Amino acid sequence: MVSPFDYVEYTNMLKNYDISFKEKTYQAGDLITIVHSTETNNIFLIKEGFVSAYFGDDSTEIYTILAKNNFFCYFPHSENFPKDLHFYALTDVTVYIIDNKEFTFSLSAFPENFGFHYLFSRDVSKHAFYRSILYMVPKQNRLLFALKTFVILFDLEAKEGKFVFPKELNSKILKSYTNLSKKVFYTQLNTLYADGIVFKKDKHFEIDAESLDELEFLT
Amino acid sequence: MVSPFDYVEYTNMLKNYDISFKEKTYQAGDLITIVHSTETNNIFLIKEGFVSAYFGDDSTEIYTILAKNNFFCYFPHSENFPKDLHFYALTDVTVYIIDNKEFTFSLSAFPENFGFHYLFSRDVSKHAFYRSILYMVPKQNRLLFALKTFVILFDLEAKEGKFVFPKELNSKILKSYTNLSKKVFYTQLNTLYADGIVFKKDKHFEIDAESLDELEFLT
Repeated sequence: MVSPFDYVEYTNMLKNYDISFKEKTYQAGDLITIVHSTETNNIFLIKEGFVSAYFGDDSTEIYTILAKNNFFCYFPHSENFPKDLHFYALTDVTVYIIDNKEFTFSLSAFPENFGFHYLFSRDVSKHAFYRSILYMVPKQNRLLFALKTFVILFDLEAKEGKFVFPKELNSKILKSYTNLSKKVFYTQLNTLYADGIVFKKDKHFEIDAESLDELEFLT
Repeated sequence: MVSPFDYVEYTNMLKNYDISFKEKTYQAGDLITIVHSTETNNIFLIKEGFVSAYFGDDSTEIYTILAKNNFFCYFPHSENFPKDLHFYALTDVTVYIIDNKEFTFSLSAFPENFGFHYLFSRDVSKHAFYRSILYMVPKQNRLLFALKTFVILFDLEAKEGKFVFPKELNSKILKSYTNLSKKVFYTQLNTLYADGIVFKKDKHFEIDAESLDELEFLT
């Protein structure tokens, strides 16, 4: 129905309508922003890099990881959060920052921009959706399901039959995202290594694309 | 930015463009449909009543409950599910059924309908969002958070200072949704009774509106 969203399309539109926005770069590990509710001052759009979202200060509670072309601090679906949501630069990151009022104006003032609503809303909801169904996946498949999730969320393309994750998506992050005990997590990881589904090369996790296709439902 | 979605608006549009749809009624307990992935033949829109969504046949795995003006089998954000998703009539339910191709046509052929994308997408994502953050809420607050979630998802209005839930939203359903043990669940419920926050009247759960407002974050 619609093609994937690309930040170029949106920023070109902002330029056309003379709507201001700025570009900013963060280094890996930087705290970008903390939000308490859907009422935020700024909307962020990722031009390059990865951003991790945590509830609370405790880094064991990772909620999701955002990638190029994803918006954050854009919450069409909710009012309040159970805890403060922290956004950190997982890698070096370049973002566009748009004032929330300007953002709203850009979408609501011109009917030809209504399609953006759908694209943004769909992309934001993907993160919530995959997070929510992770808990419906049996524990013994959860790591593999998480890796499949990140292939989709990061919109990765297979290279020589493998999806290569950024090296910052390490064991610690994956263990936190899957919410598994150390023992269960490493048992799964070792099984995936032994089965030739997951590999580690130059600190990057890699996953066999064909195996992933076959594992459609992971029930 | 946009007003809440009402099924009347959408069905009027369908009639205007001569796009066919039908109306159907199910009795409480009826299985409405099972879906394996986002590729579905029919899209459902609830005119009246409540629909429960379960992953798998096991009724311990409730995913969410949908209410009036919600679409289901409309999945803008995903491709596959970890298990089959079952939709049951939780109460007597009346739905509109729209063929998926006709549904897509109604949204994509006319630019003036693009706004619907946003509304549907946002409403669908609410279910995933609240489900996903439930696990970020400390266990001892989870029942209260779930009740607050259903006030929002059902778009309930307070009557004489209380939100009244449908009687089908009973202890069994709430226990399943919160994924708490019997002991933890009933301890929380009894505390909420004792604190005068939750009540049971004529088999309906009720919740004090003012208490709910004060409990903004539940951390």
